[in-house]
Amino acid sequence: MFTPADLHLRVQQFYHRQMGLLDDGLPERWADTFTEDAAFLEPHRLEPLRGRATIRASARARADRLAAQRVHFRHWLNMLDVREQEDGSVRTRVYALAMRTEEGGSLDVFASVVCRDHLRPDGTGWLVRLREIDHDGSDLRTAGAR
Amino acid sequence: MFTPADLHLRVQQFYHRQMGLLDDGLPERWADTFTEDAAFLEPHRLEPLRGRATIRASARARADRLAAQRVHFRHWLNMLDVREQEDGSVRTRVYALAMRTEEGGSLDVFASVVCRDHLRPDGTGWLVRLREIDHDGSDLRTAGAR
Amino acid sequence: MFTPADLHLRVQQFYHRQMGLLDDGLPERWADTFTEDAAFLEPHRLEPLRGRATIRASARARADRLAAQRVHFRHWLNMLDVREQEDGSVRTRVYALAMRTEEGGSLDVFASVVCRDHLRPDGTGWLVRLREIDHDGSDLRTAGAR
Repeated sequence: MFTPADLHLRVQQFYHRQMGLLDDGLPERWADTFTEDAAFLEPHRLEPLRGRATIRASARARADRLAAQRVHFRHWLNMLDVREQEDGSVRTRVYALAMRTEEGGSLDVFASVVCRDHLRPDGTGWLVRLREIDHDGSDLRTAGAR
Repeated sequence: MFTPADLHLRVQQFYHRQMGLLDDGLPERWADTFTEDAAFLEPHRLEPLRGRATIRASARARADRLAAQRVHFRHWLNMLDVREQEDGSVRTRVYALAMRTEEGGSLDVFASVVCRDHLRPDGTGWLVRLREIDHDGSDLRTAGAR
Repeated sequence: MFTPADLHLRVQQFYHRQMGLLDDGLPERWADTFTEDAAFLEPHRLEPLRGRATIRASARARADRLAAQRVHFRHWLNMLDVREQEDGSVRTRVYALAMRTEEGGSLDVFASVVCRDHLRPDGTGWLVRLREIDHDGSDLRTAGAR
């Protein structure tokens, strides 16, 4: 049941850099960390996004909204659990906190979510094939969370 | 003073999975991660709990209360420090944030605590022999924190 | 681009222990983790601090203020990214949450910041040569963040 140190940290580093791209306002580079046929499921908030192009367009629209509102968005990930699959892909579960600070305003830590991913190896890194996000306090649950 | 990568991550993975059990509403499986004679000290909040059976009963009662209130509880652990002891056990210090979201409500990050544990090896994993929790903003301190 | 597990964890452990010193009210020992000629830049909050002695004096004054206000301060670090440099030093980026709890009061998670450090090896540990801190929601940015 122990995930080797190197594998754990390779996945962890992937996440830190991936979410850093989103927080740094680089949604296209963030979208490039998904496979062409990736699915992004977040039932509490939006319709399923299917395919990298759709994920990219959604992320760009979101970045534009945040810039217009002069909001700094920040994702914190924690409590990462990595399970290697027989085919070399990994399934992960990680907690995330979503927080925002309006320019000149105060910090608002506004959502706790659980993210379940299926990652496939891509060279020394990873690509997201499937991301399922469940919000605490929501009745809705992704199929994968059952 | 450096804790080897493998040991650090074995302890970290233990914590992520252990607290995941509590957050997932599986208090009995969470209680199974304590030794039969474990002590759980949280002076700010409750009487000392002594023994796995007592810890289990308390955790079950708490899970039932949260379910009745339709509250999603979430524990975040961070800033883990692991110190290996000569007998192969480890002493740890880890920060924890306690947060809750009522169904349909908003996130409440309500407590910052410091958790000090004494873990003994159990196969490839660990069991908690002693857990001492101190709440920020409280005058009360466990003996172990001195 | 992968930072080896041992290096990543040696840096991570440095941070956990370093910030633990500040949270434990040991500002002098915290200041000792900076080089003699270190610079500490936090444009949103204070003038640049140059040199360990200046950093120490500022940290002591801050600790005294918090003690007088009976406030428990807590730093959380996360999303650590470590980049080894050719000369054996490392450049890091890490997110931090600043939170405080007044005695008898409730938790206030009040600031999200990004910290960029330049660390040089010091035996088995590290010393901070440069720390640049940017607050979410602030227009001000350190030069290094460009």
